[in-house]
Amino acid sequence: MPFGYNGKILHIDLTLKEISIEEPSPAWYRAYLGGSAMALYYLLKNLDPNVNPLSEKNVLIFASSVVTGAPISGFSRYTVSAKSPLTGGFGEAEAGGYWGPELKFAGFEAIVIKGKAESPVYIWIHNGKAEIRDAEELWGLDNGEVKERITRELGDERIRVASIGPAGERLVRFANVINELRHSNGRTGMGAVMGSKNLKAIAVRGDNRLEYAKPDLVKEIARWHNERIKTHGPNIQFRDLGTPGLVAGLNALGILPTRNFREGVFEGAEKINGQTLKETILKEAETCYACAVRCKRVVSSDKPYPIDPKFGGPEYETVASLGSFCGIDNLPAIAKGHEMCNRFGIDTISTGAVISFAMECFEAGILTEADTGGREIRFGNEEAMLRLIEDITYRRGLGDILAEGVRVASERIGKGAERFAFHSKGQEAPMHDPRGKTSVALSYALSPTGADHLEAQHETAFQIRSPLLDQLAPLGILEPIDPFSLGPEKVRAFTIMQRVWYLYNSLGICNFTAAPLFALTFPKLVEAVSAITGWDTSLWELLRIGEKANVMARIFNIREGIDKKADLLPRRFFEPMPSGPLVGKGIDEGEFHRALELYYEILGWDENGVPRAGRLIDLELEWLTKEPR
Amino acid sequence: MPFGYNGKILHIDLTLKEISIEEPSPAWYRAYLGGSAMALYYLLKNLDPNVNPLSEKNVLIFASSVVTGAPISGFSRYTVSAKSPLTGGFGEAEAGGYWGPELKFAGFEAIVIKGKAESPVYIWIHNGKAEIRDAEELWGLDNGEVKERITRELGDERIRVASIGPAGERLVRFANVINELRHSNGRTGMGAVMGSKNLKAIAVRGDNRLEYAKPDLVKEIARWHNERIKTHGPNIQFRDLGTPGLVAGLNALGILPTRNFREGVFEGAEKINGQTLKETILKEAETCYACAVRCKRVVSSDKPYPIDPKFGGPEYETVASLGSFCGIDNLPAIAKGHEMCNRFGIDTISTGAVISFAMECFEAGILTEADTGGREIRFGNEEAMLRLIEDITYRRGLGDILAEGVRVASERIGKGAERFAFHSKGQEAPMHDPRGKTSVALSYALSPTGADHLEAQHETAFQIRSPLLDQLAPLGILEPIDPFSLGPEKVRAFTIMQRVWYLYNSLGICNFTAAPLFALTFPKLVEAVSAITGWDTSLWELLRIGEKANVMARIFNIREGIDKKADLLPRRFFEPMPSGPLVGKGIDEGEFHRALELYYEILGWDENGVPRAGRLIDLELEWLTKEPR
Repeated sequence: MPFGYNGKILHIDLTLKEISIEEPSPAWYRAYLGGSAMALYYLLKNLDPNVNPLSEKNVLIFASSVVTGAPISGFSRYTVSAKSPLTGGFGEAEAGGYWGPELKFAGFEAIVIKGKAESPVYIWIHNGKAEIRDAEELWGLDNGEVKERITRELGDERIRVASIGPAGERLVRFANVINELRHSNGRTGMGAVMGSKNLKAIAVRGDNRLEYAKPDLVKEIARWHNERIKTHGPNIQFRDLGTPGLVAGLNALGILPTRNFREGVFEGAEKINGQTLKETILKEAETCYACAVRCKRVVSSDKPYPIDPKFGGPEYETVASLGSFCGIDNLPAIAKGHEMCNRFGIDTISTGAVISFAMECFEAGILTEADTGGREIRFGNEEAMLRLIEDITYRRGLGDILAEGVRVASERIGKGAERFAFHSKGQEAPMHDPRGKTSVALSYALSPTGADHLEAQHETAFQIRSPLLDQLAPLGILEPIDPFSLGPEKVRAFTIMQRVWYLYNSLGICNFTAAPLFALTFPKLVEAVSAITGWDTSLWELLRIGEKANVMARIFNIREGIDKKADLLPRRFFEPMPSGPLVGKGIDEGEFHRALELYYEILGWDENGVPRAGRLIDLELEWLTKEPR
Repeated sequence: MPFGYNGKILHIDLTLKEISIEEPSPAWYRAYLGGSAMALYYLLKNLDPNVNPLSEKNVLIFASSVVTGAPISGFSRYTVSAKSPLTGGFGEAEAGGYWGPELKFAGFEAIVIKGKAESPVYIWIHNGKAEIRDAEELWGLDNGEVKERITRELGDERIRVASIGPAGERLVRFANVINELRHSNGRTGMGAVMGSKNLKAIAVRGDNRLEYAKPDLVKEIARWHNERIKTHGPNIQFRDLGTPGLVAGLNALGILPTRNFREGVFEGAEKINGQTLKETILKEAETCYACAVRCKRVVSSDKPYPIDPKFGGPEYETVASLGSFCGIDNLPAIAKGHEMCNRFGIDTISTGAVISFAMECFEAGILTEADTGGREIRFGNEEAMLRLIEDITYRRGLGDILAEGVRVASERIGKGAERFAFHSKGQEAPMHDPRGKTSVALSYALSPTGADHLEAQHETAFQIRSPLLDQLAPLGILEPIDPFSLGPEKVRAFTIMQRVWYLYNSLGICNFTAAPLFALTFPKLVEAVSAITGWDTSLWELLRIGEKANVMARIFNIREGIDKKADLLPRRFFEPMPSGPLVGKGIDEGEFHRALELYYEILGWDENGVPRAGRLIDLELEWLTKEPR
């Protein structure tokens, strides 16, 4: 075994009720690692182009990685991937928590699911075996009830459940998959794909003890990392306030998305920021498997909104999307909205975004009380927000239209509503205004999954804390990155950081634990991968796998007809900020388009944004050169 | 000082007699390191296109690197670079020994020399100061005499001298630069450039103690490396037999260049191999600065050929070029030829190649006794070989034509002599037959310096000793490399290894000490660079600098009109081997041309073999996008 690592992939055909186990070669594991890269491998090999993503022909993949489950902070994530019903292109969403490691303990790196069950089922994976079980009784239940019932049915308190709620069953296009009620594979509508397959949940449990090439070194790195987390500035801040701690800083910079990107400063920011959360509704800090960062918030409340802490608490994205983005400054209302989203299984970012979109349409007179069942869904109306979460989940009235996502909803509503629909490739923009950090502009336009905040390094962080620049040095990024530039140095850094993000999404590593911003440095990361797998790897090899995943995703999209023409940024971002510290700032449209062209050129793609055959071969993707391009 | 490293570059204008000292930024050192990359920076910035390489307008660079002089085995090399009078394109040649480290001890990483001295001079660099000194008395002397006289004149036994002999003075187009009489910057005619500038020598001496970011770690790595050298198979072999040890293996494989590439098996191989050398003329093993490998041979003999050991001894390349390649099996004659080449200052590879070429022309009747002064210069005629070394040096008779190199000589001789002239871009092929290792075919065609054996990994090594494959793993090269393939996996590995070679030639690291074949692994190399410079670097960053150097060299050549049309392989290599283990094997011409196209594509160059602007920008070469391309 020259490169170490042996593992197993579980294949399940829900139509045929067939279960089989694949044991790929060590070389294959080294080439595809896990997560995004591994999922893309199976999607490209198994999925015909142009199938309906909500048909039984879609292929659904749950993928941890070769390092998932190692007891190192942040090595806990997994990907859910399929053709996206929201974008029609590459869909994937990562989540932390405990489910990914448990899949490894149960004996598998990944599950590849085809077909569609005749009637609702769930999958039970336990110590190397898998079973398709009846879920008739579970259909219709929310995530909390599902987890309870499956736990009881299997008689094991330690099982981990990833499930969908009523939104996934009803094919809400931004329905998510949730594990342990608080860790969501949030984006690109993976819950709807599960729903379309009549798959309610996947429960996993295992006693498999993971083996490492150098177990003592793994422990030593874990200890080193945990010690560093205690003293590393950004990790200290995340431990103290969680991601909601970002509210204050982004508001101060003038880029806290407010009222559907109309503004970048929210007058109610202080009422919803991390400090306020800590002082009011916080119950406890929580964490993912083996992680010392403890950035997760658990919140609870009795009134006015009773909030069940078992659904965790809102991240920054949620505080902003259901808060400032909807003009709402009532933290308990936001937290209630978060709880409902987790209970029903919908993505909080897209949910907040479609509600905010509806609010702006209403204020502009495009939607009226005739459309809203008589409700005034204006910015700041928390009751309307909470009600719409339910209406979207159950596809009632306006909610049924919004459940299609802002792109389709805005087309259906018409009357110019498109100008209020902030999405790229059909996916709603997350809570980051690219006018204050242009790498986000590139990311929104170029991410294969559509607007995505986990595909670019947000350069503002480096402006605030320049000593952290040091952690970028091994990438060859040696100079501070201007947050407003779209020049060559920005595009170059973006292409390098995109490799890093795809690597993290392939290894299932949480960026809140690792370089450039957080405690695990790049050299230590390489050492960790080597210690776990036994591979004598390098940052060179790993970043090329990151590039490979990005290229595979691009090819996947091109097969689906999503090409350069879809590399777009919503128009509002080209317009000047109306107020705040960045008043007058807008993305320069000419510069932006030149930057896109440069992006293709730097990566060696052609003028149509298509990766050239030589680039595919360089990345050991010979097998893809025969795909239609 | 965020990235560590401060240094100095010495600038000398021989016309104006001006000396100045530049102190580039730490960031610049990190971007250009030394050696090839640093030299290319100065060439591209300072040299106008299309100047006569033997005119005062050429720029001559001596460049060590940021790591040169560290007490680690193999960190001793430096580059001499200029526009080549042999190829008309990028010229450079590296050498080990002691001169490069001494330049650092004297206070400089590099010397950039412009203009031409009115009359012969030499340069004396001592503890941060430089002086242009009269060399009228030295002109005409051989290298041995020069070193002796300069040492006496400066009154310091410990100075190190790089000099040219009579061949450089006479602008022999493959004249070399030699340091300490036995370490040659052999190729591309750098000695002729020195001669054209009336520059006889550069003497260096310094007491500067080099400082390292982590001195203890530098020492620890040095120790670790030296220990490993003792037990690492290929290093043990090199210590035992030196590079002449390769003769036996290559002959057994059927690719020992014999009689001008007419054959690959030499009937006299045993009489000239490393073992025979060890048992007969070997005086002692020698080494370069701080190196534990001790691969250098020192030979001596009284008769029939008195050989002065102060000129060292022949490497494999010399044993083959003056031996099997000329059909000569008399080791003392070969060693004498080597001593003469070092004394006179000509490259042993090109010298053997032009002599072999003349021999084949003679045997084919293209050259006759009328051309050769009545001598029968047939294969196997050692007296003719030795006499021609002198005639080339002093440009006598046929020697004067051969002194122009095989390309020009074959054109002048005409009558179809071109078919016996084995060169790429005008530089004579070294002693490696690409029919048995196709990466050498790519290297000959694609190396910016013309046919070169230090630009590709010779894959035969990995066939013989497959455990060594492990050392390639950090590069992502995980499978054995078929020596006969020209498929995608070969071209991919070639592009990666080319980055490694350019990195080594930029850092001044000897490949006989480092991965993939020798003891210093890639991860340890990265650690060493970090410990010396203080940079938190990575294999990712370093290999990209390797690619950058290759791209700069390509752009340099394109400026000089040397483009894709010059990416050629001599025709004989497409013909089948006439005998030996590889009988019938020839390079497939169609495959070869497809491989070249794939090479351009993999690197993101256009269909004309020109690096695209986006690739330049990716490699932080924005400043080159304005060059004519």
